[in-house]
Amino acid sequence: MLSEEMLTLGKKRFIIRDIFAYAQERMKEVGEDHVFDFSIGNPNAPVPKEVGEAIEEILHTMTDSQLHGYSNASGFEDVKQTLIDHINGTFDQTYTTNDIFLTCGAAAALTITMRALLNPADEVIILAPFYPEYPSFIQCGGGIPVIVPPNPDTMQIDFEALKKAICEKTKAIIVNSPNNPSGVVYSEETISKLASLLKEKSLQYGHTIYLISDEPYREILYDNITVPFIPDYYKETFICYSYSKSLSMPGHRIGYLLLPYKTEQIPSIRTAVSGAARILGFVQAPGPAQRIIQKCVNVRTNISLYRENRDLLYNNLTKMGFSCIKPQGAFYLLVKSPEKDTFQFVEHGKKYDLLYAPGEDFGCPEYVRLSFCIAQDKIIHSLPLFQQLADDYNLGEVSL
Amino acid sequence: MLSEEMLTLGKKRFIIRDIFAYAQERMKEVGEDHVFDFSIGNPNAPVPKEVGEAIEEILHTMTDSQLHGYSNASGFEDVKQTLIDHINGTFDQTYTTNDIFLTCGAAAALTITMRALLNPADEVIILAPFYPEYPSFIQCGGGIPVIVPPNPDTMQIDFEALKKAICEKTKAIIVNSPNNPSGVVYSEETISKLASLLKEKSLQYGHTIYLISDEPYREILYDNITVPFIPDYYKETFICYSYSKSLSMPGHRIGYLLLPYKTEQIPSIRTAVSGAARILGFVQAPGPAQRIIQKCVNVRTNISLYRENRDLLYNNLTKMGFSCIKPQGAFYLLVKSPEKDTFQFVEHGKKYDLLYAPGEDFGCPEYVRLSFCIAQDKIIHSLPLFQQLADDYNLGEVSL
Repeated sequence: MLSEEMLTLGKKRFIIRDIFAYAQERMKEVGEDHVFDFSIGNPNAPVPKEVGEAIEEILHTMTDSQLHGYSNASGFEDVKQTLIDHINGTFDQTYTTNDIFLTCGAAAALTITMRALLNPADEVIILAPFYPEYPSFIQCGGGIPVIVPPNPDTMQIDFEALKKAICEKTKAIIVNSPNNPSGVVYSEETISKLASLLKEKSLQYGHTIYLISDEPYREILYDNITVPFIPDYYKETFICYSYSKSLSMPGHRIGYLLLPYKTEQIPSIRTAVSGAARILGFVQAPGPAQRIIQKCVNVRTNISLYRENRDLLYNNLTKMGFSCIKPQGAFYLLVKSPEKDTFQFVEHGKKYDLLYAPGEDFGCPEYVRLSFCIAQDKIIHSLPLFQQLADDYNLGEVSL
Repeated sequence: MLSEEMLTLGKKRFIIRDIFAYAQERMKEVGEDHVFDFSIGNPNAPVPKEVGEAIEEILHTMTDSQLHGYSNASGFEDVKQTLIDHINGTFDQTYTTNDIFLTCGAAAALTITMRALLNPADEVIILAPFYPEYPSFIQCGGGIPVIVPPNPDTMQIDFEALKKAICEKTKAIIVNSPNNPSGVVYSEETISKLASLLKEKSLQYGHTIYLISDEPYREILYDNITVPFIPDYYKETFICYSYSKSLSMPGHRIGYLLLPYKTEQIPSIRTAVSGAARILGFVQAPGPAQRIIQKCVNVRTNISLYRENRDLLYNNLTKMGFSCIKPQGAFYLLVKSPEKDTFQFVEHGKKYDLLYAPGEDFGCPEYVRLSFCIAQDKIIHSLPLFQQLADDYNLGEVSL
């Protein structure tokens, strides 16, 4: 009677939420200090003081209509101008305010893009490992998700597999670098190679294959690594950005969609994006959040906590004998399951109240995901338990 | 290449936006004071001072995570509890926090409901006159909009026409009272009659026909009229509510979806609604706005300005000989076109810089819509111009 599709989706519970619920229960039983929940990716770097100052300022300087009233569907014109100036300055581009559409976070930017691009039966390629909501977002646009597994040792793109997956029906590919759940960042070389392949395949099939770059972790980077600005390599790129992580304000639901520019299709793309935002019920991005990011355009959260946590966890776990993918960005660590059944490894961790998510939903079933956006104390106190876990599997340190 | 459906929708411009753009141009030519724009429904009642006080308070008393962090998909638990207590107290109900889902305004509540309810080819009935986005919102859920014209003299429901429109495929009906664009309010008698019809037809076709009540204007009421609480008459009702008008804060994008309760299907409905919100990309309603409405649960904007504006406009226009539907709520006035071609009447108004929207997109093509949520001065200064317009049509006052 209700939508079959939505019932199925609603029932398919986020396994992460189940772990979170289990953590709450365990905390009641054994005390909060004794439960180590690495399951949830809730940014815990401090909210920059400038965010609070911006709220104070807009509250006392703006008119009711500037602060509480409607903006255009794509955002306040002056906010868009500030963001575009910042983007052009940072990435040496020449975007205009017509090329940006403010959204309720990156999720909204993704669903709007899918709805704007896809006709029924169009395929969208997802590069594993991936954020578990991507398949739903593609379904939101009426398309079909096609998952391409990565190089299992590096979690980088397996170009041979990708080449085989692209076909006549391929309308777009989603890229997420820095990546959730692996922390992997695509190098300039990788992006160049991807761009060449997409250009070749677009030519072969006689239609553009769009690149959709989901970039909520753009600024969460370690070891002086840099993230290439993809439109420099492939102009048919949609960028989906969010301030949830860069300003530690995920509750505000604010981000943007940066449209492909320097292409002939621009006016049509804008039209389709406007239509998509309307039909989905996104009247506009929240106005007060628009004002806050305008004031904080040059501000970013201090990620030193994340870096320290990464080092603590990665260095110690590898030392114990766990096989890990070293995160170059974001705040997740993939650890390879030391036994064949990853779900058993998840269960085994629970014996020490070490809670982490199986990689199944992320497209990397041999791994578990540990979020390290948690208090450093927790990580420090979890290490002896991880050692016991390693001992159970006889991992030990390999002596040379 | 792009989504055909979205290109079509995006191209179908809101005629209201065109009028708004025209108004901006004319203001540059003849000065702001000489242009009378009755086209846009932007609430202009003052934002209650409690809203600003709430922002100040949450900024200085809440932790980063309470103010800037994620909530559950359906909202912060304590915010939902406050709203449910208020709803139960106001309408004498026994809802629980499981029955409410906070949304990015009423538009989001509507698209989530459509997506949760509809299977392909399901029909949803829209009662004219109607908010022009309803057909798109139904398409968002994959359904087919079926428009039922009203009694043309009263803009109330034409029950005979409605009876004929309901069929095997009917999954739901949208009700919007107080109504945009007519200002009409459905009486208890009307709601009772509607409920009886829906019960009869649900029985006849062997499945529930849901009622979706879009209630952004619930508190914008005149002449001590009351709005029946529809679930008292028909329990299979979804209520889509927004704080955009009641607190004059449309930019915040905050509202809620109140689910049918006291029905057997409750768990399934919740599941489908969660699935729908996720697939559309609505991660959660904006957190700070959730906190504001929690603090302002008993606050409503002062609508005396709207009442005065309505009286000024309705009384004078009818006196001039225009035929109008008297608004009992909301802030719109339908005026019957004195000539057959309503678009000509719109053009004729422009001669006096009187700008109003043709009823075509609202499902009442013989009328124009005047929004009276504008400065009272504007209305006062527009009256001599409306008199000239009336004179052009020889309306005059009918002497008895």
